[in-house]
Amino acid sequence: MNEEQKLIKTFFYPIADNKESMELKNDAAVLFKKKKMIITSDMMIEDVHFDKSYNPEILARKLLRINLSDVAAMGASPYGYTLNVAIPKRNRVRWLEKFSHGLNLDGKKFGIKLFGGDLSVSSKIFLSATFLGVVGNKFHKNFHVIKDSEIYVGGNIGDAAIGLSILNKKISLKDKSYFLNKLFLPDPQISLGKSLTGIVDFCTDISDGLLTELETIANNSNLKANIFESEIPLSTQTRKVLKKSGLKKKVLELILTGGEDYKLLFSVRSSKKKYLKDNIKNIKKIGFFSSGTGVEIYDQNKKKINFKKKGFCHF
Amino acid sequence: MNEEQKLIKTFFYPIADNKESMELKNDAAVLFKKKKMIITSDMMIEDVHFDKSYNPEILARKLLRINLSDVAAMGASPYGYTLNVAIPKRNRVRWLEKFSHGLNLDGKKFGIKLFGGDLSVSSKIFLSATFLGVVGNKFHKNFHVIKDSEIYVGGNIGDAAIGLSILNKKISLKDKSYFLNKLFLPDPQISLGKSLTGIVDFCTDISDGLLTELETIANNSNLKANIFESEIPLSTQTRKVLKKSGLKKKVLELILTGGEDYKLLFSVRSSKKKYLKDNIKNIKKIGFFSSGTGVEIYDQNKKKINFKKKGFCHF
Repeated sequence: MNEEQKLIKTFFYPIADNKESMELKNDAAVLFKKKKMIITSDMMIEDVHFDKSYNPEILARKLLRINLSDVAAMGASPYGYTLNVAIPKRNRVRWLEKFSHGLNLDGKKFGIKLFGGDLSVSSKIFLSATFLGVVGNKFHKNFHVIKDSEIYVGGNIGDAAIGLSILNKKISLKDKSYFLNKLFLPDPQISLGKSLTGIVDFCTDISDGLLTELETIANNSNLKANIFESEIPLSTQTRKVLKKSGLKKKVLELILTGGEDYKLLFSVRSSKKKYLKDNIKNIKKIGFFSSGTGVEIYDQNKKKINFKKKGFCHF
Repeated sequence: MNEEQKLIKTFFYPIADNKESMELKNDAAVLFKKKKMIITSDMMIEDVHFDKSYNPEILARKLLRINLSDVAAMGASPYGYTLNVAIPKRNRVRWLEKFSHGLNLDGKKFGIKLFGGDLSVSSKIFLSATFLGVVGNKFHKNFHVIKDSEIYVGGNIGDAAIGLSILNKKISLKDKSYFLNKLFLPDPQISLGKSLTGIVDFCTDISDGLLTELETIANNSNLKANIFESEIPLSTQTRKVLKKSGLKKKVLELILTGGEDYKLLFSVRSSKKKYLKDNIKNIKKIGFFSSGTGVEIYDQNKKKINFKKKGFCHF
């Protein structure tokens, strides 16, 4: 058994203890569920999505959660995943110990199976996961938006972006643990995603910032998204930061354009508004679609706000 | 539309023209085939699996083919794949042009669908793909080997390893294009893999070298693999190189331990030998399993050959 096989046996066998993985002894895993499924893949790269300060346990959990957020955005139930891990040779055993512990923690929390994957050495850390989820006949498609549909979000926006600004030393705050936790461990809105199938026009997760996601949807639908800044749900902690006179503009920009909150963003047409209001809790209306193009943001006095930076782009 | 979205639209939309990808506008693709499937994932990293001298078109095709080889080793029919691409910002457009051309070429050749994926910037090139294949009730499992089963390979061994040695300037040859081609563009043995379901004890592809693969299977089965060096099928070109007095030992080592040939390796028990012989062409018996452990190689005089290096390991 070579070193690669030994590392896989030590750290990945125990968490791939499911029928599908077949003890990781085959060239592939077998998916015994003959259901309609969704597939999604996301990666995390050192010095692009994170830096050396991140704990490997957090990296593992975040990798699972950002992928699970895509599963949620489809209205699917998570099934399992394959994993690609490339790490430097130095400290590999300690690194894998922490990383696999993180996989195990959130793997159990979200009831997902590790099917298999690939392990390699690399000068920089590279991580990717491909997730499968099970859907029924109804799932979310992002091209059914119509005029006058109301735009909703599934929770507070901005916490993760403030966390990232703290980490990058662009903002200095005393109570930073709340924001860092939101950045490191987003909560994929799986139940919400499922409960919205058949009700909403579209559903996506806010990974690259509210404005970017809205702009994409608006462009795909040849409509304009209108957002009221004062309606965007904020945490008590973010409200506090927003009140500090020197940070107001910066924080408002983070709320609108910073990514990584992984809250669901969706819209509902007139005929489904009542059902949504009566049945789905903890969501917040922030605007509506109208004729036109792009995204328009209005302040408390219904005056348009202009923003240069639209969101996160990997290029 | 940001740069990332523009690049995806230009280079990946045209080759993701299938029902499942839904124009890459959703957070995931939907798999409409409700069949039993296999899932496998493999990655390729700059300076680990390849270097800057590789053409992006070749990288794309090799990425697909090494994954398709795992699909073949399961006895599955390829369905489609998700893709993760991380590349330097510099020359990204030209790079993606060539890369997507390669994906398109082999995507059509093998009838596979691009479901979706993720694109990012990175200082070094990182590529991974996750493949789905469709299987019937019978597929290959790697833990049914029994004593006296005969060991077979699906084709010539050693060509790709010689190619790699040429590329790394460890061997110098006049006619190098044959070997480089075998290294760059392995042929996944999809038809062979399917035709062997229900007949063989195990089936895997030789990605990390003949001895490493055999050792893994032997260890998993508590058996010893016995291989006759003179029975290993070689190309005319490799035979020629082997005849050169100064290279004999080096080339023999490459044949036994060099990886990347992606030929299928499998074994058959007594009761199925006749069926195999009568029905499956272009395969070669190279040895058998017996009581014991590990791998034993015999020369023409049935004398044991000792090798230190057992195969390719990423650590």
